[in-house]
Amino acid sequence: MARTFNLALIPGDGIGPEVVAEAVKVLDAVTAGSDVEFAKTHFSLGAGRYLETGDVLTDDDLAAISGHDVILLGAVGGVPGDPRLKGANIERGLLLKLRFALDHYVNLRPTTIYPGVPSPLAAHGEVDFVVVREGTEGPYVGNGGSIRAGTPHEIANEVSVNTAYGVERVVRDAFARASARRKKLTLVHKTNVLTFSGGLWQRVVNEVATEFPEVAVDYLHVDAATIFLVTDPARFDVIVTDNLFGDILTDLAGAISGGIGLAASGNINPDGTFPSMFEPVHGSAPDIAGQQKADPTAAILSVALLLDHLGLAAQAVRVREAVVADIAARDGSPRTTEQIGDAIVATIAA
Amino acid sequence: MARTFNLALIPGDGIGPEVVAEAVKVLDAVTAGSDVEFAKTHFSLGAGRYLETGDVLTDDDLAAISGHDVILLGAVGGVPGDPRLKGANIERGLLLKLRFALDHYVNLRPTTIYPGVPSPLAAHGEVDFVVVREGTEGPYVGNGGSIRAGTPHEIANEVSVNTAYGVERVVRDAFARASARRKKLTLVHKTNVLTFSGGLWQRVVNEVATEFPEVAVDYLHVDAATIFLVTDPARFDVIVTDNLFGDILTDLAGAISGGIGLAASGNINPDGTFPSMFEPVHGSAPDIAGQQKADPTAAILSVALLLDHLGLAAQAVRVREAVVADIAARDGSPRTTEQIGDAIVATIAA
Ligand SMILES: CC(C)[C@H](C(=O)O)[C@@H](O)C(=O)O
Ligand SMILES: CC(C)[C@H](C(=O)O)[C@@H](O)C(=O)O
Repeated sequence: MARTFNLALIPGDGIGPEVVAEAVKVLDAVTAGSDVEFAKTHFSLGAGRYLETGDVLTDDDLAAISGHDVILLGAVGGVPGDPRLKGANIERGLLLKLRFALDHYVNLRPTTIYPGVPSPLAAHGEVDFVVVREGTEGPYVGNGGSIRAGTPHEIANEVSVNTAYGVERVVRDAFARASARRKKLTLVHKTNVLTFSGGLWQRVVNEVATEFPEVAVDYLHVDAATIFLVTDPARFDVIVTDNLFGDILTDLAGAISGGIGLAASGNINPDGTFPSMFEPVHGSAPDIAGQQKADPTAAILSVALLLDHLGLAAQAVRVREAVVADIAARDGSPRTTEQIGDAIVATIAA
Repeated sequence: MARTFNLALIPGDGIGPEVVAEAVKVLDAVTAGSDVEFAKTHFSLGAGRYLETGDVLTDDDLAAISGHDVILLGAVGGVPGDPRLKGANIERGLLLKLRFALDHYVNLRPTTIYPGVPSPLAAHGEVDFVVVREGTEGPYVGNGGSIRAGTPHEIANEVSVNTAYGVERVVRDAFARASARRKKLTLVHKTNVLTFSGGLWQRVVNEVATEFPEVAVDYLHVDAATIFLVTDPARFDVIVTDNLFGDILTDLAGAISGGIGLAASGNINPDGTFPSMFEPVHGSAPDIAGQQKADPTAAILSVALLLDHLGLAAQAVRVREAVVADIAARDGSPRTTEQIGDAIVATIAA
């Protein structure tokens, strides 16, 4: 039975288009000659589009994207400090808007230290964990405001909003993942300071834990979690945490595991009501854009997550194995974005 | 002219008393035979005191502490999960209450990679930076609440409160420090998501920067800052950031620089209206309490910061030099808390 998935491609800004091009080549290679096909629609969105048209993400854009089965995004965001972008917040208006509108409540960010990868850590055991970052609540809701802005009496507030509904669904997802992995879940929060939101997270974890007696549960304050990520990353299996802590911890996880150039992510709507979106954790890096300097591996590993999500586990494994082989073969000599993509494609095709 | 400073000692819980004992020995050694004297008052506060009396910090405690010139604190907090502590939040009710009541708006946390110290980082240049963490605002204000707590409809909010007044004074302090150091200041925030508070911080930094034209100003999102702390910590001179980001970044800074056992801090009220408070960044570590396993170096380096704050720069240098010598002489064989303190005292006395 042939299956066709509708794929929305959002290459975005900076290095986004370069890394997405390689990711698409890999997707094509791993489905070539099979009964699985991806019908691709290209969406030109990001800082570039905003500068041309004044639009960040229209209702029509959103409706069109929503109609797809799955989304692959490169990176969005213009040159920092570009005065022409002053009126627009591409991150909030595009990336976060997609995550919120498409109810991507599981922001999945795996970390593996691959054999052969140069990690800045002097020593580490086998590192393979996944951060389940809540994606639709917390300090990211945009529920802030200020009075007397621009005066010496300005007060600017930001409200972190956390609901039992929102916390429970992501915690349950994290427990299910832990149960299917090494059966260890670590809640990361700051319960001693953020007593209301932290109390909610802690209570929900305690409750859901009773449904997963096989999973060992641990808790770390976010500050302590950064220490263990550096000194003992092998201790982690599944980390579940809020939107902001997850943002911080996953960049750190990228850094300790061979760089943000390898860090993939999925913005997942597990209910299937909306399409899930896969993207490298890295940003648009306008300083190296168009120079074929970006590592497309994070985008390619995001394709593996996308394949997993669609139930195409065998294809996901082939992508990952090709990436692992490519990383193991690295000898430090520079390669272009395209050369890395081609090498991975060649392994898959072989 | 003989000078006597009134020092409030709050050894606290867990390893607090052990490390404070060594810090006091060092303080005594470095002032012995000089015209500087410390008159010490011992305050028995923390989880232990709460379990005995039901009090965390009374108005009388606070008034008595406020009457001192300076405070040295060990660590506070009981055994995590101790059911008898359920009704009390020692961190909020004692540590944060002191920081807020005594208007410790500059939370100063220096990081140095000392020669000879085993750092988990594979490679690094000369690392010597200081984090100026705001201490009286942000997500730490305790301005949160919940409705329908404990039900599936619970909503728990936390409000980060940021004022131009509060941000400007800490930013100005950070610029002054940068001006007296390597003349580089990095603002760390998350302006692309927390647009109101981030916008305030960014505007204040831009404004105060005009008063310090000699200081180069940089900005990093908090997630990116964690990456650079791991991959290129030598790039930092002064980091200025909010209360929560500062909490996270300074534990990470401790981890990359040889461990939280070396990380000192000062909670400073630069106006001198209230006594400043010096404390190791580490916690009470109840699991190793009373076993002479804790490294008192962070507490001893906190004494150096205390001496700096009181204008006793020569004495601060002697403490630091003795610590540097002790670290350089380490050969990995285990020493007791007391042995480390004694070794540093011996160097100072020599
Ligand atoms: C660009 C930014 C809004 C985004 C976030 O903070 O979530 C990014 O840092 C990420 O982690 O995907
Ligand atoms: C104990 C806790 C409240 C405290 C904080 O979050 O500030 C600690 O982590 C610190 O960094 O001094």
